[in-house]
Amino acid sequence: MTLKVYFDNGATTPLKPEVLEAMTPYFCEVYGNPSSLHSAGAAAARAVQSARETVSKCINAEPAEIIFTGSGTEADNIAINGVLSALEKIQIARGVNGKGHIIISAIEHHGVLYIAKKLKAQGYEVSYIGVDKTGKVNPQEVVNAVKDNTLIISIMHANNEVGTIQPIAEIAEKLSKVNSGRAQRVYFHSDCVQSAGKIALDVKALGVDLVSIASHKFYGPKGVGVLYVKKGVPVAPILFGGAQERGLRPGTENVAGIVGFAKAFEIAVENLDKNAEYVSKLCASLCNGILSTVPETVVNGSLEKSVSGIVNIGFKCIEGEAILLKLSQAGVAVSTGSACATDSVEPSHVLSAMGVDTLAAAGAVRFSLGCQNTKEEVDYVLSILPKIVEDLRKMSPLWKS
Amino acid sequence: MTLKVYFDNGATTPLKPEVLEAMTPYFCEVYGNPSSLHSAGAAAARAVQSARETVSKCINAEPAEIIFTGSGTEADNIAINGVLSALEKIQIARGVNGKGHIIISAIEHHGVLYIAKKLKAQGYEVSYIGVDKTGKVNPQEVVNAVKDNTLIISIMHANNEVGTIQPIAEIAEKLSKVNSGRAQRVYFHSDCVQSAGKIALDVKALGVDLVSIASHKFYGPKGVGVLYVKKGVPVAPILFGGAQERGLRPGTENVAGIVGFAKAFEIAVENLDKNAEYVSKLCASLCNGILSTVPETVVNGSLEKSVSGIVNIGFKCIEGEAILLKLSQAGVAVSTGSACATDSVEPSHVLSAMGVDTLAAAGAVRFSLGCQNTKEEVDYVLSILPKIVEDLRKMSPLWKS
Repeated sequence: MTLKVYFDNGATTPLKPEVLEAMTPYFCEVYGNPSSLHSAGAAAARAVQSARETVSKCINAEPAEIIFTGSGTEADNIAINGVLSALEKIQIARGVNGKGHIIISAIEHHGVLYIAKKLKAQGYEVSYIGVDKTGKVNPQEVVNAVKDNTLIISIMHANNEVGTIQPIAEIAEKLSKVNSGRAQRVYFHSDCVQSAGKIALDVKALGVDLVSIASHKFYGPKGVGVLYVKKGVPVAPILFGGAQERGLRPGTENVAGIVGFAKAFEIAVENLDKNAEYVSKLCASLCNGILSTVPETVVNGSLEKSVSGIVNIGFKCIEGEAILLKLSQAGVAVSTGSACATDSVEPSHVLSAMGVDTLAAAGAVRFSLGCQNTKEEVDYVLSILPKIVEDLRKMSPLWKS
Repeated sequence: MTLKVYFDNGATTPLKPEVLEAMTPYFCEVYGNPSSLHSAGAAAARAVQSARETVSKCINAEPAEIIFTGSGTEADNIAINGVLSALEKIQIARGVNGKGHIIISAIEHHGVLYIAKKLKAQGYEVSYIGVDKTGKVNPQEVVNAVKDNTLIISIMHANNEVGTIQPIAEIAEKLSKVNSGRAQRVYFHSDCVQSAGKIALDVKALGVDLVSIASHKFYGPKGVGVLYVKKGVPVAPILFGGAQERGLRPGTENVAGIVGFAKAFEIAVENLDKNAEYVSKLCASLCNGILSTVPETVVNGSLEKSVSGIVNIGFKCIEGEAILLKLSQAGVAVSTGSACATDSVEPSHVLSAMGVDTLAAAGAVRFSLGCQNTKEEVDYVLSILPKIVEDLRKMSPLWKS
């Protein structure tokens, strides 16, 4: 069965042909090392600098605040561990134990989640902020968790499993009040991997200090990420080598990937409103179609408060993975949660935090739509899904029909 | 002036068109996330697995021993810091201070050099092994430096500035004798970024535990590296997130880059002897031409004991950087050392370690040739270089003609 419908844009997206076109000269023609002093190096360095300017404009930042990385996960690691590493020295110089306290939401992506787990093992205190049944944190609860030794807060912009948009600007506003009376400022990082290119991302309006982005979520290349670091925020390197990216990401720059990141981001931001409207309509049509044709289904999260494209549906009494495989056999790609957690047999930590019970969480399927998807694709999925669910439920010992 | 001659293949190389061709389907067509369970994900996962098999064959390893990274520098960081992080726990469990001793050569690439510097700041002891005037370490001296608390040795395979090939197999053999009587084995890492694709790299014959490689040095893409980790060697992650690459390199895989790495490596290894012979002849012709037409020049290192393609020439009484810029104006790309150190005004640490005096080191130029270069290009450089050097020397207060 060849792939007919790709509804897994939350995991990754196809590269846009015009992005590949923008990248192509940087493979075989403009191939210099940006660190080289000759004209071939200078041409590559100009391409990286131009990409840096484009990306900075997309998020209302300065070019010098943009660090290109190898992935969104790497950006998360540099952001959190880099700030803590920089602060550790300052804290110790002040006579305070360098291992302080960090705050994250309970529904962070595995990047941030496992960084926090590792930090806990190293002696840091970690507070996990819960969410309501739509998957949203309460800004007041976040700042209430700030303690004397708090160093950084990391709250994602849009959740990857259910799409819920977090009140980042509200948290930042409350935090700035808390910070005004403190000797040691609390820094604020946001993993914007699922929101970038889908909703407006103005770092000044959001009030964040650090932001992580990955281009393969908005039709750009895999293997390249961005970390925004607000001017003045202390970040120490966590990898060591050359002086590239202000020493924060040593290693020869992935020039073609960086050019592709910028091109894809520029296209996404230019078409943001148009795409969001289009994808929201498609999503609503899929969601309403499923709810009206498949009995005993619920929406996990809230379609209204979500980043466009992500719909998480709970199918009672069956396994989401069984639906995924049946859909895959019919040429439809969806997921049961994060692609980064496919090795795990644990129920989704996001759905658990939202209060979805373990049994119901097991039947969750994430449909993540993108601007390349069509009404015909939605109709095709709606034409096969009821029968798939019905057949699976017939085999389920939990289903009483 | 457009680029006529690219003699800076040690910094990076153009992508081979057939490598780009191999990569292309993985941008817009086979675009799934390898961690996704559906057929689109499985197709991407198969491509990564196939690349892993190809790379493993190129170095006589097992597929499970290959970790794809975002750069050679990242591979160096995971190798050294990952082993030390894994051993720290073991050491502490044994009641020994986890911060032990590491050994590197004095002429390592900035990747390894700055990792060692950081480790020293963290409390590790670091021994730097010197080199002879050709840039070669003495294997006996390396193992003599092993102490009770030594945990890892990192010696590069071929030096990036002068090309000298290090006696890796000899060091490994002597080390295995030392290791046989120890409670805590000393692990052996080699940065093979400059040797891979140019000289045979058989990890079993070399006797190494960990090897770093980057594909952009052999006509593959930038932004992708490989770390070979011998089965059983303990390595803890240094970045945290998803379970990709056995948890050692979290983040969505750069599928196209990984495919390109494998294709470029396969082509380089298949043509290794032919290319080495061709490039060696070109190099000898360039080197002899320079020595016979430009007075007061010396070869830094030894052309015979070097990886093919790298010739480092010292031009007395002038600055290498001035030659570089004049050559660049004439359309010729060369370097004065490592592209990763271009921000530095220090004399080359490699030439200093070889005993080249500071003044002579300042006049060093690295010509790094590749299999795409031609005799005509060598002739062109030989036709313009003597005049460039002569003109610069006329302006030099050090030159007495």
